[in-house]
Amino acid sequence: MKQSLRIVMAQLNLVVGDIAGNVNQMITAAIRARDEFHAHLILFPELSLTGYPPEDLLLRPDFIDQVRGELMRMRRGISGIDALIGYPCASGKELYNAASYVRDGEVIATYYKQLLPNYGVFDEKRYFSAGHAPCVVELRGIPLGITICEDAWAVGPVEQAVRAGAKLILNVNASPFHIGKHQEREQAIAQRVNATNTPLIYTNLVGGQDELVFDGGSFVMNSGGEVTQRAPLFESGLFVVEINASGPVATSLAVQPALEGGVYRALVLGVRDYVNKNGFKGAVLGLSGGIDSALTLAIAVDAIGAGAVQAVMMPSRYTAAMSREDACTEAIALGVNYSEIPIDGLFDGFLSALKNEFAAYGPNIAEENVQARVRGVLLMGISNKTGKIVLTTGNKSEMAVGYATLYGDMAGGFAVIKDVPKTLIYRLAHYRNQLSTVIPGRVLTRAPSAELAHNQKDTDSLPSYDILDAILELYIERQYSVEAIIQAGFHATIVKRVVSLIHRNEHKRRQAPPGVRITSRAFGRDWRYPIASGFDYAGSR
Amino acid sequence: MKQSLRIVMAQLNLVVGDIAGNVNQMITAAIRARDEFHAHLILFPELSLTGYPPEDLLLRPDFIDQVRGELMRMRRGISGIDALIGYPCASGKELYNAASYVRDGEVIATYYKQLLPNYGVFDEKRYFSAGHAPCVVELRGIPLGITICEDAWAVGPVEQAVRAGAKLILNVNASPFHIGKHQEREQAIAQRVNATNTPLIYTNLVGGQDELVFDGGSFVMNSGGEVTQRAPLFESGLFVVEINASGPVATSLAVQPALEGGVYRALVLGVRDYVNKNGFKGAVLGLSGGIDSALTLAIAVDAIGAGAVQAVMMPSRYTAAMSREDACTEAIALGVNYSEIPIDGLFDGFLSALKNEFAAYGPNIAEENVQARVRGVLLMGISNKTGKIVLTTGNKSEMAVGYATLYGDMAGGFAVIKDVPKTLIYRLAHYRNQLSTVIPGRVLTRAPSAELAHNQKDTDSLPSYDILDAILELYIERQYSVEAIIQAGFHATIVKRVVSLIHRNEHKRRQAPPGVRITSRAFGRDWRYPIASGFDYAGSR
Repeated sequence: MKQSLRIVMAQLNLVVGDIAGNVNQMITAAIRARDEFHAHLILFPELSLTGYPPEDLLLRPDFIDQVRGELMRMRRGISGIDALIGYPCASGKELYNAASYVRDGEVIATYYKQLLPNYGVFDEKRYFSAGHAPCVVELRGIPLGITICEDAWAVGPVEQAVRAGAKLILNVNASPFHIGKHQEREQAIAQRVNATNTPLIYTNLVGGQDELVFDGGSFVMNSGGEVTQRAPLFESGLFVVEINASGPVATSLAVQPALEGGVYRALVLGVRDYVNKNGFKGAVLGLSGGIDSALTLAIAVDAIGAGAVQAVMMPSRYTAAMSREDACTEAIALGVNYSEIPIDGLFDGFLSALKNEFAAYGPNIAEENVQARVRGVLLMGISNKTGKIVLTTGNKSEMAVGYATLYGDMAGGFAVIKDVPKTLIYRLAHYRNQLSTVIPGRVLTRAPSAELAHNQKDTDSLPSYDILDAILELYIERQYSVEAIIQAGFHATIVKRVVSLIHRNEHKRRQAPPGVRITSRAFGRDWRYPIASGFDYAGSR
Repeated sequence: MKQSLRIVMAQLNLVVGDIAGNVNQMITAAIRARDEFHAHLILFPELSLTGYPPEDLLLRPDFIDQVRGELMRMRRGISGIDALIGYPCASGKELYNAASYVRDGEVIATYYKQLLPNYGVFDEKRYFSAGHAPCVVELRGIPLGITICEDAWAVGPVEQAVRAGAKLILNVNASPFHIGKHQEREQAIAQRVNATNTPLIYTNLVGGQDELVFDGGSFVMNSGGEVTQRAPLFESGLFVVEINASGPVATSLAVQPALEGGVYRALVLGVRDYVNKNGFKGAVLGLSGGIDSALTLAIAVDAIGAGAVQAVMMPSRYTAAMSREDACTEAIALGVNYSEIPIDGLFDGFLSALKNEFAAYGPNIAEENVQARVRGVLLMGISNKTGKIVLTTGNKSEMAVGYATLYGDMAGGFAVIKDVPKTLIYRLAHYRNQLSTVIPGRVLTRAPSAELAHNQKDTDSLPSYDILDAILELYIERQYSVEAIIQAGFHATIVKRVVSLIHRNEHKRRQAPPGVRITSRAFGRDWRYPIASGFDYAGSR
């Protein structure tokens, strides 16, 4: 390229719906990019004005009107630096996922996203029409091609922009985290770059939004497909990209965290943003002495600080002494408010109230569920009284097979680890303890138990978690058939039982709180199964 | 037309996922259409092999494989009558929403749906690719054009089929009920028929599937846009259409029920199918003496029979004597199992257990919620013990503004009247009492109260239901802006408060059980708002 360019990637934590707040944040960023970094251009993420995903807000004319007004304010609020701004753009009867290139208060070009994802967690065809044309603008004599997120994941828009003359691709994104996603992204982008021999700047959103966590990790790739710059993951910031005659200048490469570190940081960011963006005064959770609540407590403290977190141990006749000891030990280690509320009296009260109703039946799951629900009522009472959100502590393995009590341990506002398989829970606990020891060693080694009956162990009802999690991953995330899982080496009876349990518990998951998505398929927006269904999932007929 | 035709509309209650069961039902129908009615052709609803909507089942290769196998069995199972069969059809890497015309075991033509709805409750672009071509087949010398549901709601596929020679349009559907929908359908179809001067046979699905109720009401329209035949609503059956030289022969026109009757039957069918398709042994609900639970009980009894329904009155210190009397009176009138479980002891037990936690705070909503949650735990205990589903009794007005307790009165498997505004609850109760008096008169006339505090009335916290429901309809269903609602004559303060309450309670609705959709916009698949959101919905800043 003939000229040098200095471009800022604005990896910001933008809030869905808070258009005015987002514009304020963006104007501040643009002024800093201009005055502090002397940049020629600042890139904001996809749909930066609205945050992502705005969902059915996009159907409201008053929302689109406000976007229009705030875009005008943004245009007037910045000068002396170009800006690429993502927003929903109404044109006639159509709505587009657009990015406008603004210079000196004027929109000099607007690009409409062409490839609209409508799979997984994405519903963009519910809202947007697809664009069809490339968009190339010149900055200091260099033609820049604009694309939005999905546009760069398949052959098409990037190649089209290069054919239209682009020498550098600006790709703006709202790309959510899951395990391995960052590598997938760089591989997908490398295909476009290698096919076109054109460098690309990838700018991503950061922050938690309901079940999604956007992980940042914006990067720059040179025309050889090498990453020359990578911004940190899970942090907001402005990152300066230098482009000279030979392309992007190699500079700092943020290290991609290992699996445990990436997931842990995603969970922390997800909790922090859910608590803060919803305006809760803190968080409360039931601490059982088991590993799930132990990890959840550590995440909560790392997310919002020990002073804002309360832990409640609610022992029953089935609670082991070591559970109480370990709960208390962790609470002290983390410095959170800790109290005990025994539940046996309330449990007995319910059994007594239900005596006539239960008289004709033997003991079953009902008695266990009453205990879990007594705890749910206690925690929700504290929540309603204090304004703290209840964090639930169930993991993905349990959510999958329904090893959880609706309105009991599932009662709460945010299910922190609902997408984390049990085997990964252990790895995350070890990871957290490497930073500083907070989870007692015994919690990591004892056999998991719900402690809702005498000498109960999870393995009384479920396969060992090694096997369960392996089957779950093949079935849920990789969409193997039952037959293929059996062929992969698992016992047919176990596979069929697990698959059958998954679908029999759809109704429970439908009433579960949202939680952080960390895998490629969570029980959330990307899992839409009917409740009433005659399909023989397990193929056992 | 030169020839006469006899065509059967198979308005069947097909089960999502139960492909083999659906095929059995369809083969039986085809044989009856051939042998009993001597029909030339039988029309099945959209996606008849799979039921509608199969949702993410469509993403499973094993599901699509089973469809392929069962279609083969179906083709071999019928002869001597043509059949139009809806199913998901894989072709290369694409999946289509298809209808195949089968004659003597052979597929002689396959149509791919062109207009894929991806709005409201529909997500068809998540699964299907769109077709582009018309499909015309000849039966006894008469060219028949095939279209699927949405195809007939806009200019395009019907006109295209007629240009391709069709003299009669076969439109197969899975069109869900909402108030006024049947009229909308006939109006939409009349536009196509009038534009093309071509008669049309509209065959619809019937039955409840999670939150949707398909209402049948299949009909025939002659080339003049007149309905010449209409099948009953909310009932399955085979309906014979005679076509002679001058077009469809006018015959029985099922009366479209008035609003109350239509909604009531939708609710009954929705409950019956949810209970039966999910294999519950019966239903249990909390009967409070108020109108919501009174109506819910009547619907439950009409849906699954008094013998399968249990009502539980759970009085507290705040329960009026007339509440207990009226609950008991209705239970006797309907002949259901009735019991009382007082909750004061359990309520006091929780207050005592929470004494330390509550000490620093004054009374607030927490104490009221504890009462509702004690009731929730009791009902769920009965459910877990007996295998009966808990039916919740909250109405749409409450769900909208959050006047309900999570894990309390919201605890249950199916929320029968969650889409019915309070003012319509009264009309439905009067309607039901006209059939036979089951709801005591006093329930219909006393001021609504949650009875969670002394002398409490709903109007202590909410506007009168006349005003609330009018605002809710304008905001939710008709998507008016706050400003437009105020201009329609409502008090600005009230409008802003209501709109603010709607969005502040998104988290509650996200954890609500599914329930029957009866309006054009329910809090379900067609309401997808973010929980964390900075949008100023009420425009009050």
